[in-house]
Amino acid sequence: MIKLLTNDTLGLIAGALTTLAFLPQIIKTYRSKSADEVSFATFTMFAVGVALWDLYGIKIHSIPVVVANSITFILSLSIVIMKVIFSINKK
Amino acid sequence: MIKLLTNDTLGLIAGALTTLAFLPQIIKTYRSKSADEVSFATFTMFAVGVALWDLYGIKIHSIPVVVANSITFILSLSIVIMKVIFSINKK
Repeated sequence: MIKLLTNDTLGLIAGALTTLAFLPQIIKTYRSKSADEVSFATFTMFAVGVALWDLYGIKIHSIPVVVANSITFILSLSIVIMKVIFSINKK
Repeated sequence: MIKLLTNDTLGLIAGALTTLAFLPQIIKTYRSKSADEVSFATFTMFAVGVALWDLYGIKIHSIPVVVANSITFILSLSIVIMKVIFSINKK
């Protein structure tokens, strides 16, 4: 089946999964108002990394890389922001 | 500076960041032996997604996409496995 997919379609499915993957973590963290077990370094490095993937996608003219990483950037950054806010509120 | 980087170099730096990003979460989870606040759905969807990114990278002949996502697959899967083991051990 994978052979039948165009490169862009496969990339968009992959991008949809790695992008939407962040939603359950966002919902879980928002509901529990706690993210002590979630690593700040992980999601910060991730946000910076996907910003660079965006630049890479622009340079190689890959629509799936640009679209997926732009959304992932916003989602991973929102986990970082929630973690900071909830950790301040706990003090 | 980014204009001076070749596409592959930029992709490899981006890949190094989004790949190494998982290490702090792995270390944190391994030390605390608890991952209740870490979303199972997030890291499972992520592992499947990066496996598809791998196929995409093979199809578009992008070394950075293949290398980064192969390592990310192993790391995100190890977070899923740790979460399952620690949650079983708690019962």
